[in-house]
Amino acid sequence: MVQYSNELDKAFGAVSDPTRRGILERLGRGPASISDLAGAFEMTLTGIKKHVQVLEGAGLVLTEKVGRVRTCRVGPRRLADEAMWINQYQEMLEARFNRLEAFLEHTKGKSP
Amino acid sequence: MVQYSNELDKAFGAVSDPTRRGILERLGRGPASISDLAGAFEMTLTGIKKHVQVLEGAGLVLTEKVGRVRTCRVGPRRLADEAMWINQYQEMLEARFNRLEAFLEHTKGKSP
Repeated sequence: MVQYSNELDKAFGAVSDPTRRGILERLGRGPASISDLAGAFEMTLTGIKKHVQVLEGAGLVLTEKVGRVRTCRVGPRRLADEAMWINQYQEMLEARFNRLEAFLEHTKGKSP
Repeated sequence: MVQYSNELDKAFGAVSDPTRRGILERLGRGPASISDLAGAFEMTLTGIKKHVQVLEGAGLVLTEKVGRVRTCRVGPRRLADEAMWINQYQEMLEARFNRLEAFLEHTKGKSP
């Protein structure tokens, strides 16, 4: 089950911050410049740049600088592996609880 | 879309580490003591305790100390909100790409 470990680390780390989740949600509606994001999140350019770098490092955001403007857009990674990891974890728990339930049913059937 | 912000922060942060994901996968198969986990992950008791505390703080693990043994099991939170956040983000991207595609189709139809 442990796959793409470094990518999972980076992506889960990236979305563990409310501003970074907010930036992803904002970019999900369309590209935005660093200044746009700084305005939207009432944060300094430096603060926003740091968050964008973390998202970029995880492949969740792409940026391109043209002249003095750096435009950000959603990147190639779409949290698919992260969703899959959570899904497999939940299925594992469900399977175990189903086995426990079946065992309890079986035990109940045997009680006097 | 931004809901349960603090819980999302803690849970995403908790699963951003490969050992902590490994501990969840291990506990998904059944309870284990801190010593069991230290053995399984070839880590000191102190190291494992720190990871378990992070998972416990996020509600992903529960621990109970009986005598000298602290037993760990999966907690009440099952990453459901985290899966939902990722899902909503992916749906948002998909909806936007569908709109872009429809727009391009429409534009193509109008070209000479």
